[in-house]
Amino acid sequence: MHPTHGLRDCPVVVVVLISAEVGQVVGLLSLREGQPLSVYATRRVHQVLAANPIFGVLNPALVSRLQLQLGQEVDLLLPGGQASGLAATAFAVPGKAALWLEDATRSDFGSVDEDSIGLRIGDRATARVFWYIPGCAAMPADLATRFDGAELLFFDGTTWTDDEMRRTGVGTKTSRRMGHMSMSGAEGSIAALAGTAIGRRVFVHINNTNPVLLADSPERAEAVAAGWEIAHDGLEIEL
Amino acid sequence: MHPTHGLRDCPVVVVVLISAEVGQVVGLLSLREGQPLSVYATRRVHQVLAANPIFGVLNPALVSRLQLQLGQEVDLLLPGGQASGLAATAFAVPGKAALWLEDATRSDFGSVDEDSIGLRIGDRATARVFWYIPGCAAMPADLATRFDGAELLFFDGTTWTDDEMRRTGVGTKTSRRMGHMSMSGAEGSIAALAGTAIGRRVFVHINNTNPVLLADSPERAEAVAAGWEIAHDGLEIEL
Repeated sequence: MHPTHGLRDCPVVVVVLISAEVGQVVGLLSLREGQPLSVYATRRVHQVLAANPIFGVLNPALVSRLQLQLGQEVDLLLPGGQASGLAATAFAVPGKAALWLEDATRSDFGSVDEDSIGLRIGDRATARVFWYIPGCAAMPADLATRFDGAELLFFDGTTWTDDEMRRTGVGTKTSRRMGHMSMSGAEGSIAALAGTAIGRRVFVHINNTNPVLLADSPERAEAVAAGWEIAHDGLEIEL
Repeated sequence: MHPTHGLRDCPVVVVVLISAEVGQVVGLLSLREGQPLSVYATRRVHQVLAANPIFGVLNPALVSRLQLQLGQEVDLLLPGGQASGLAATAFAVPGKAALWLEDATRSDFGSVDEDSIGLRIGDRATARVFWYIPGCAAMPADLATRFDGAELLFFDGTTWTDDEMRRTGVGTKTSRRMGHMSMSGAEGSIAALAGTAIGRRVFVHINNTNPVLLADSPERAEAVAAGWEIAHDGLEIEL
């Protein structure tokens, strides 16, 4: 969250995990260079980390594991305990158990409420807020209502269509099966949030199969026409 | 081992793990994009992978787990079973259990023979050979003898001195405690292999604390004067 100095310093000092998916938790294993770090996650995700010995490489003298309670706003603390100036509120979103934790004997794959969360991030000084939901399998009405009046929303832009992985030959599962709603179509995120008042709406977590990544694609034009921005590496947004 | 084509193709199709250290095995979790892969390792390391559910993300329909027996040359097979043209022989080298698998109740941290291996890699077509040992805690006489007459050796270049981590402020352990002999000094690798006939000797696995990384350092000059090359990102060697 702020740049520091030294042979191995890394500007990342606070991490908030939104699930236990490999793409989330494996990054921790690259942040193991002996530098202070605060790791926030739900009890469910912390249980997963605690149960797996590989996360023992995170030196407990340097890495604090801090728990998020659904619906409770917490001040994100820097390692050492000072306030970062940001506050986070976690809330459950439709999702599923991380792939490597799925229970194949159950129709919901053993998913629980805390598997996938969204985040409301507030700046204590300015009282401005943004929402960050990189994984979301569906848009129930009460979730869309949360975003009503939001100044800035980052939302799950994994795929354009539900069968995209199969059609592009990189997988066999539908997006929904992977815990992601698509952008397009009657059940897609563009339609689901069309009636919600949101200042800026930005797709993130975009899969490399998604045609919106191509600046000249009809899909990109459709998303932009619907008021969406498409995030890219190095994107900076000032709130 | 050869470039391929497609949306997510990756030129890596065969992986040989030389230990279960996080720096070795976590790479597998980034190679999980649903592409065929052959993973070679000792029984010990395969047991570690099998016991940890996170490696379940490696799709068994695509990823073959193949076992290396110490001292036995095996043809490295591409996914699908064709010969790659390369053969590998694994042999135990002084090392230790991976950090996250250490048994703190034992003075050897629960290390076993198959924890750390070196590799002799042979090209079937040309019968030329190179040796690859990125982690090695000491140089017993029988190990140095193995390399006698070698055309090309890649060797553990983690640190210059044993207390380098502490002195540079990035850690508290000695190199030896981490399973690495240093380059310099009477017990260092430069001295240990000074009397061994080796065509080209190249340091790899170089820590960012190691002064040989600096082109103008006295340590670099000393290593080069002793006949060593210092590997760098993008280094290509033709045998």
